[in-house]
Amino acid sequence: MALAAATLQSLMDIVGDSRVRVDEQSLATWGVDWTKMYTPAPSAIVFPSSIEQVQAVVRLANDAGFAIVPSGGRTGLSAGAVAANGEVVVSFDYLNKITEFIAEDRAVRIQAGVVTEQLQNFAEENGLYYPVDFASAGSSQLGGNIGTNAGGIKVIKYGMTRNWVLGLKVVTGKGDILELNKDMIKNATGYDLRHLFIGAEGTLGLVVEATMKLDRAPRNLQVMVLGTPDFPSVMHVLREFQARLDLTAFEFFSELSVQLVTAHSGIARPFESATPFYALLEFEALSDAMSDEAMAIFEQCVEQGWVVDGVLGQSETQAKNLWRLREDISETIAPYTPYKNDISVMIARVPAFIADIDAIVGAQYPDFRVVWFGHIGDGNLHLNILKPDAMEKADFFAKCKAVNVQVFETVQKYNGSVSAEHGVGMTKKAYLTYTRSAVEVEYLRAIKQVFDPNGVMNPGKIFDPA
Amino acid sequence: MALAAATLQSLMDIVGDSRVRVDEQSLATWGVDWTKMYTPAPSAIVFPSSIEQVQAVVRLANDAGFAIVPSGGRTGLSAGAVAANGEVVVSFDYLNKITEFIAEDRAVRIQAGVVTEQLQNFAEENGLYYPVDFASAGSSQLGGNIGTNAGGIKVIKYGMTRNWVLGLKVVTGKGDILELNKDMIKNATGYDLRHLFIGAEGTLGLVVEATMKLDRAPRNLQVMVLGTPDFPSVMHVLREFQARLDLTAFEFFSELSVQLVTAHSGIARPFESATPFYALLEFEALSDAMSDEAMAIFEQCVEQGWVVDGVLGQSETQAKNLWRLREDISETIAPYTPYKNDISVMIARVPAFIADIDAIVGAQYPDFRVVWFGHIGDGNLHLNILKPDAMEKADFFAKCKAVNVQVFETVQKYNGSVSAEHGVGMTKKAYLTYTRSAVEVEYLRAIKQVFDPNGVMNPGKIFDPA
Repeated sequence: MALAAATLQSLMDIVGDSRVRVDEQSLATWGVDWTKMYTPAPSAIVFPSSIEQVQAVVRLANDAGFAIVPSGGRTGLSAGAVAANGEVVVSFDYLNKITEFIAEDRAVRIQAGVVTEQLQNFAEENGLYYPVDFASAGSSQLGGNIGTNAGGIKVIKYGMTRNWVLGLKVVTGKGDILELNKDMIKNATGYDLRHLFIGAEGTLGLVVEATMKLDRAPRNLQVMVLGTPDFPSVMHVLREFQARLDLTAFEFFSELSVQLVTAHSGIARPFESATPFYALLEFEALSDAMSDEAMAIFEQCVEQGWVVDGVLGQSETQAKNLWRLREDISETIAPYTPYKNDISVMIARVPAFIADIDAIVGAQYPDFRVVWFGHIGDGNLHLNILKPDAMEKADFFAKCKAVNVQVFETVQKYNGSVSAEHGVGMTKKAYLTYTRSAVEVEYLRAIKQVFDPNGVMNPGKIFDPA
Repeated sequence: MALAAATLQSLMDIVGDSRVRVDEQSLATWGVDWTKMYTPAPSAIVFPSSIEQVQAVVRLANDAGFAIVPSGGRTGLSAGAVAANGEVVVSFDYLNKITEFIAEDRAVRIQAGVVTEQLQNFAEENGLYYPVDFASAGSSQLGGNIGTNAGGIKVIKYGMTRNWVLGLKVVTGKGDILELNKDMIKNATGYDLRHLFIGAEGTLGLVVEATMKLDRAPRNLQVMVLGTPDFPSVMHVLREFQARLDLTAFEFFSELSVQLVTAHSGIARPFESATPFYALLEFEALSDAMSDEAMAIFEQCVEQGWVVDGVLGQSETQAKNLWRLREDISETIAPYTPYKNDISVMIARVPAFIADIDAIVGAQYPDFRVVWFGHIGDGNLHLNILKPDAMEKADFFAKCKAVNVQVFETVQKYNGSVSAEHGVGMTKKAYLTYTRSAVEVEYLRAIKQVFDPNGVMNPGKIFDPA
């Protein structure tokens, strides 16, 4: 779908000729995220360099009648940043500056295109810490993190991206600039629109600037990996450690993932014993007593039969390698064309939920290999079904989609979420009502109407227009 | 304003005859909160005992055309729960049960009428901690805390009420029941309406049930009070301690408040020296090294001239008495008919902001005594102007209101908030645009329209209808 020549010219007038791209290569690059199920087909990519330019583009979209897809680091896994229908992609690649550091508030003002790792490094250089971290931190942009309320591997202690946003500057779908919350910790002056834009996947407007809070740097982090004889034991281990230590992470993964990761990366197994499941936990050892406490809990878990074997990282390198057992899973299984689900339930419901899902997948497709891993301390599970070598991709995806309905019925049965931290985008849109009631979705639509009455902002993401 | 007899009968049919009150005493009691500037004039008080009854009352309000004022512990300070115009007050006094405890999630399901202290005690009985705490915790109800996003004295570590709400069951102004977020830590399925209801002061609907997250119990809390020679020194003290310890509180108050509190309560001064300002700080001493660290920072602050004298609570009793220097201020100054403002700015802006406000009040009313105190670690300041004995109440309030405009112009100049943690209600309504832009307020109005198209939910609070 091509833009009218006059519209294209107007875009160039706003952002400058060199900041509008319509070549095939650019359209293919900026028209997709990490989901590869859709064919990118944007009509243009624009690269604004100020909030005024963003506002002008949004106003033009309303006047000229084109749709906008916001584009950050394009690392999304739900097609929230895919432009498959002639949309204009607004990229934040040139709005990538850290503009101000306010030491007293431990706050940093950034443009939406700042990369997560760039913010993490900036924090570190200033003796502080930006705690939201995940595998794609090297490419994902803060605007996208905010739009999806990104989570990751430290949520058990630090919470989601939402917790670290002090203020936002947004351009609404109507083209208004709003300064949301003005960077204060306490501000009880009516509805907090900041929290409405966080997680809205660009459907209400565009996040252009943000003020992020930083934390003190963690001290003396210790990493343990423990092997458990079954899944319920993982839960016991979580409860024992959490009762007595402040965990900064609690992840789990299965033996199959250890086999795949160690074969792929060449790193060593954590210990000789192979066990069905593994828990990786991390904590700050603020005193020797805390390290001793961790060892005591470990021994107690062994006595109870919840832990078969375990290891405490003895050096920074060893700790890093233990983390890689968890962090390299996604990359390792990528060649197996995994069918991914990112689901969550309350922690108490995890064991029964996993057992149900395993039974469903096992009954339907006994030849499929399933890799479970996830942020068990938050009730967030990544279910990855690996494609058998001999099976055609299309056939495999069709089979997975068929089982998906049963998976999401199980999510609904356990009052869970069809998307824990990846957003809805297009891939989860059909399943939204498994988590949100139909009545609730009508309220979502009405809110969209308030901020974006002409439907120019990322249409067809989260839900379809009424 | 009286309700039609048929409407009153309908209310009784919904909640039961004994759960509708129209006697003068009840109307006067349930028709106000702690603000005493308005004359209560509700037409009836109803006490539902189930979410279905709440829904039926809201639907009746839409059909019969009466307005609803939600009523919790009535400890609000902005007249958010005042019924001055013939509204029907919906009291949550009989929806006061803790219904479920989910240990694995450290989560507790409550009805909206549960009192803050009741939840705190329940948490303690289960070896856990509900960290939102403030002077009115003995009467305030969770529904009200959620409606105003209550803050208090532990925000520096634990954040506002918002951080502890895993899920909400609400009845919208249209009469729909919504289950918001379903109690999960991670749930990226579209706009998070939970955060819209938190802080909405009952203008979008009624919070009927909530699932609150609990934290581990704090360990070995240590309290220090330090005397500083001037206000900027308070900021230095904050920065030094915060850089090296995880503070659970950082409060400040002035010498005048120490004089008033010690005279009123008979507790001892913290130490002999009188200094213009005092900082109260609290931290968990998780090891002896941390206590030593605190002493080292204290000594360093003395060397730098930021601290003149100080004391570390040596027993639980002494710690409690140190806390009373801060916590008894409100009660102590109540007889002086204080004119209260609850304002906030970013922490970095606090010193200049305080100096500006002091200059304004000093220039306009040199005979007024000003008591400053507040949660300086969050940029939240309570400005209390005491009525001179000889002055008439009406005259005093008129003078304060006149100076208010200058105070709020200063808030605006520093990009601050006219209500940090008390909400807008009616008392701050006229000043809302000093913090929220006129354009933003139009979005707030439009959101209200989505949830409450007939304007039955707490009308005239936060903003007036368009």
